[in-house]
Amino acid sequence: MPENFTLHPRLEADTITIGRFPETLVLLHRDARYPWVILVPTLPGIREIHELPHEVRHRLLDESCGVAAAMQALLGATKMNVAALGNMVPQLHLHHVARFEGDDAWPGAIWGAHPGLEYTAEALEARRGELRGAFAALPGFG
Amino acid sequence: MPENFTLHPRLEADTITIGRFPETLVLLHRDARYPWVILVPTLPGIREIHELPHEVRHRLLDESCGVAAAMQALLGATKMNVAALGNMVPQLHLHHVARFEGDDAWPGAIWGAHPGLEYTAEALEARRGELRGAFAALPGFG
Repeated sequence: MPENFTLHPRLEADTITIGRFPETLVLLHRDARYPWVILVPTLPGIREIHELPHEVRHRLLDESCGVAAAMQALLGATKMNVAALGNMVPQLHLHHVARFEGDDAWPGAIWGAHPGLEYTAEALEARRGELRGAFAALPGFG
Repeated sequence: MPENFTLHPRLEADTITIGRFPETLVLLHRDARYPWVILVPTLPGIREIHELPHEVRHRLLDESCGVAAAMQALLGATKMNVAALGNMVPQLHLHHVARFEGDDAWPGAIWGAHPGLEYTAEALEARRGELRGAFAALPGFG
């Protein structure tokens, strides 16, 4: 990780680490309502995908697609929601939310729909473990 | 456009065409609350970004970054929101929403926040025209 990179405090509080790609943190959101993985490029000072250098941007997309496909295959999600919003947390971060027909916000967007629901410590670890396993085959993940 | 591609009726109803890249439609959403551009790859039967072939996916990202950067530069947006959701419209489409501190949904997400607000015919044409101008320099746009 670049020495001058620090994870935004809000992301630090809301997530736990699943693993990383060489230039990207892979985080699990603590909201148990939805399987929700966040990728954070570790290049400091980036707010928008279009601010990333061309090659970094393509690698991030490949990581994002790998994560989204692995989540969908593991969980049998109806739809993956992939988004870079960042109105509240300016540090670039890419949401990957596995959506299911009939989940708490279906078919609406999840942001602002419901307050977060805590995992039990066991369920959080189980979720992290199954996702770590599903991502293990992705190039560069560790 | 591939002969077997048809724009989803909901996207057809909610947008007007700004232009296109060789494999991607560039649409303007009719909701006047937010400057809102939607990219739709014209490869039939695709629901998820990760279903796109590797090269197509990279070209779509380059188009998306070009559109987002041009919108932000033209409009002075505080933040670009870029998202592939598709819970209601399964055909893959990528939202690009220019967000401003104090806009109707700020700092929340726009989806489900407010009912759509109609442009006047003149304002819709003006918006389309200024965006077409801003996208004119993007490779492959026409």
